[in-house]
Amino acid sequence: MNRIVRFHALALGLSLALSAQAADKATTIPAKAVSAAEQLRDRAVTDQTAYKVVESLTTEVGPRVAGSPNDERGRAWAVAKFKELGFDKVYTEKVTYPLWERRSEHGAIVSPYPQPLTLTALGYSAGTPKGGLTADVVGFADLDALKAADAATIKGKIVYVSTHMQRQKDGHDYGMGSATRTLGAVLAAQKGAAAYLLRSAGTDAHSRTPHTGVTGFRDEKQAIPAAALSLPDADQLERVLASGKPVTLKLDLDVGFNGTYTGANVIGEITGRKHPDQVVAIGGHLDSWDLGTGAIDDGAGVAIAMAAAKLIKDMPQRPDRTIRVIAFANEEMGLWGGRAYADQHAKDVAKHQLGTESDFGSGKIWRMTASVKPEARGAIEQIAKVIEPLGVAYDATKPGGGGSDLSQMHGKGMAALSLTQDGTDYFDYHHTANDTLDKIDPKDLAQNVAVYAVFSYMAAQANGDFGSAPNAFANDGARD
Amino acid sequence: MNRIVRFHALALGLSLALSAQAADKATTIPAKAVSAAEQLRDRAVTDQTAYKVVESLTTEVGPRVAGSPNDERGRAWAVAKFKELGFDKVYTEKVTYPLWERRSEHGAIVSPYPQPLTLTALGYSAGTPKGGLTADVVGFADLDALKAADAATIKGKIVYVSTHMQRQKDGHDYGMGSATRTLGAVLAAQKGAAAYLLRSAGTDAHSRTPHTGVTGFRDEKQAIPAAALSLPDADQLERVLASGKPVTLKLDLDVGFNGTYTGANVIGEITGRKHPDQVVAIGGHLDSWDLGTGAIDDGAGVAIAMAAAKLIKDMPQRPDRTIRVIAFANEEMGLWGGRAYADQHAKDVAKHQLGTESDFGSGKIWRMTASVKPEARGAIEQIAKVIEPLGVAYDATKPGGGGSDLSQMHGKGMAALSLTQDGTDYFDYHHTANDTLDKIDPKDLAQNVAVYAVFSYMAAQANGDFGSAPNAFANDGARD
Repeated sequence: MNRIVRFHALALGLSLALSAQAADKATTIPAKAVSAAEQLRDRAVTDQTAYKVVESLTTEVGPRVAGSPNDERGRAWAVAKFKELGFDKVYTEKVTYPLWERRSEHGAIVSPYPQPLTLTALGYSAGTPKGGLTADVVGFADLDALKAADAATIKGKIVYVSTHMQRQKDGHDYGMGSATRTLGAVLAAQKGAAAYLLRSAGTDAHSRTPHTGVTGFRDEKQAIPAAALSLPDADQLERVLASGKPVTLKLDLDVGFNGTYTGANVIGEITGRKHPDQVVAIGGHLDSWDLGTGAIDDGAGVAIAMAAAKLIKDMPQRPDRTIRVIAFANEEMGLWGGRAYADQHAKDVAKHQLGTESDFGSGKIWRMTASVKPEARGAIEQIAKVIEPLGVAYDATKPGGGGSDLSQMHGKGMAALSLTQDGTDYFDYHHTANDTLDKIDPKDLAQNVAVYAVFSYMAAQANGDFGSAPNAFANDGARD
Repeated sequence: MNRIVRFHALALGLSLALSAQAADKATTIPAKAVSAAEQLRDRAVTDQTAYKVVESLTTEVGPRVAGSPNDERGRAWAVAKFKELGFDKVYTEKVTYPLWERRSEHGAIVSPYPQPLTLTALGYSAGTPKGGLTADVVGFADLDALKAADAATIKGKIVYVSTHMQRQKDGHDYGMGSATRTLGAVLAAQKGAAAYLLRSAGTDAHSRTPHTGVTGFRDEKQAIPAAALSLPDADQLERVLASGKPVTLKLDLDVGFNGTYTGANVIGEITGRKHPDQVVAIGGHLDSWDLGTGAIDDGAGVAIAMAAAKLIKDMPQRPDRTIRVIAFANEEMGLWGGRAYADQHAKDVAKHQLGTESDFGSGKIWRMTASVKPEARGAIEQIAKVIEPLGVAYDATKPGGGGSDLSQMHGKGMAALSLTQDGTDYFDYHHTANDTLDKIDPKDLAQNVAVYAVFSYMAAQANGDFGSAPNAFANDGARD
């Protein structure tokens, strides 16, 4: 994932009791479908499809940064995998975005204590001049300190910001971590910095694996060189800064914008028997950062969605509505696939029955929240009962944001869930070389598949809809 | 550390009861010295000197691979630090060795699934031809499988060996891990391999930080390109090999021999009051691998020895014998500093009262073993009693090897201890980029200082010697 959806306390009474009139129009899930969903859940928890899928993707394709040769191989893999799993319909939809490339990257303390630093360039970073960039460092404790700083103290310097993240189940420190990365780089550039460095937005205090991720730079003109230090390297730089001596660094980043690239969202469908044009939309993003093999970010999400739909396909008959699995293009550098999908499908928003994307690793889902019309709350409660034995609590007080790319379709008015995974160790590996298959627990992954299969199937079988309509959830408090 | 001393069951009765004649000549430690040692121990466990020393070394010098500019800075640092700590005498002794350099290193799977591999070249590896080396891989489960293999199956191939190490308190799996690295490379070269790869000799199953270390190559003519994969990359390669398809790799290692280099052992002494020419020898090695900052390997060892001697210096009067702290040169590529010291001081072996080196990280010492003359066993038991409250058990059935570099002086006949540290997580970080200051627990480090201070002081105050004499311990079963 690139961004996580954060929740604000809901002022709106989404969970108010239905009015008598509304009750007449209540969306419900037939008992037969509930019973079938329970069986689906019990099959899913021991099913190995998702693990095999993510093993295949991370082994046979590996890293697949947007616009790279492996990104193209990833699309070919996804088309082939959808077909191999027996999806009824497989197609792609073009997504065009700026191409950004990482070729090589080095950093070092030049003085007072010469030594290399382990760092990684950030998405949309500018390259340094040939031969590298050497400048003094000015350090800030956090983003607020950088905001408050006088541009005169920054001009021509390498700005370093030291935001510290802690491990949390819901990963909420990534709010400030990602802001330090995205906004911090832009602020530093605006104040005339020669380059920008941050303490990685991660929680692996003892690992020299820096965390990449996109900056807020929109184009080549705005961009300055920007990179993240691993946490032990950040500690090292901070010790050197604490010596009080002037600290000079050299950055040598051969990275940068290189025109535009057209990739694609890859889509597979299990075609609905009664309402083929009405879709439950699930997915993950197919692109990854280049440092790891994109196992938890977001091979897992793609695998969870593919496996959930495949299990529904294996049922005696097709579901009433279509299950659409979307493997999104270039989520990492700014939700490009999600925005393209939302633009291309905005006119069909009402035909999106319900949707959400998996993009927070492979830890167990522990919470479900929903943004649906009041008349569909009962159906959500029916879903909640079936997934409760999997350890998922339904919190009716919070909105459902739809996940990273599908947040864009939710923004257009698609009814959406948030299925929150346990992200306690997610930011140990996120956007690093350590995002590899060994981080995935097959049992936790299967629990995710069970939840996705259950909700997708039940939503597909519902009598009635969940409230999708143009701009239906504009004020639900789910922030993209 | 490069190698660990391994123990064989002792056939010799080193711990037999003393004969009546021997009892007359028994080495003992005066009660006053025992009491002073207890106070020294209690001061040491709260003393921060060692942590400050290793923080200074790893921050102000950082990586210091033998023969590099930072190696030279390391020597200047050591001379300055000995002086700052108030040592009576500070000097260097030249050590000459082949210079081996790492300039850049890349690896990738070319087919069937193109993607980069995280690897690091091994010490004394040859470089690949300009533009890299591309060849098919042949995999072996372990060193025995490679030994048994027909050279015809290996010729022109990249040999890969998959020895797996497990975490252990005494780190004994490193025996097979380091053999796979040192002997495996030589065997592969002898059988005509184009290059050699191993699963890193490490226990960090989830970290993409490959473990470097020396090979058994003795010169440029014998060497082939040789590197270690991180454990997740080894898993990845093994999955690809398991596909049954031919697997082609490309290695691009710009590394190799580059003439000879003369560095130095850096020595600091607290001069003995009564017998200045008799020395208790302790130390660590000053060089490190280049990937990390050499905190646990072996900044910790240097810091423990420096701090122990400094605490002895701080006592009301100088000890009877000299405490000699040796910061050895180039341990990593073959005990060059230790061998040079042993050659230069062989004639003075009998003047080495007792010695041992710290080179297994910074975990607590949990076991003491000794190779001393039978008449000195009582003095060792006296030392054991003083360090027992620190959690150190004395095992009288095993020899003491003297640690990595000082094993060479023990080989010449120096009485020696082994003070075994808890190495449970040592091979998570050993020889990787993750060997950084954050891995050191200051309290554990101080426990080490207490043990070194106690034994050094008590040995310095002993009435009598511990049996050092030319070749005195040739058959003690301590293998270097």
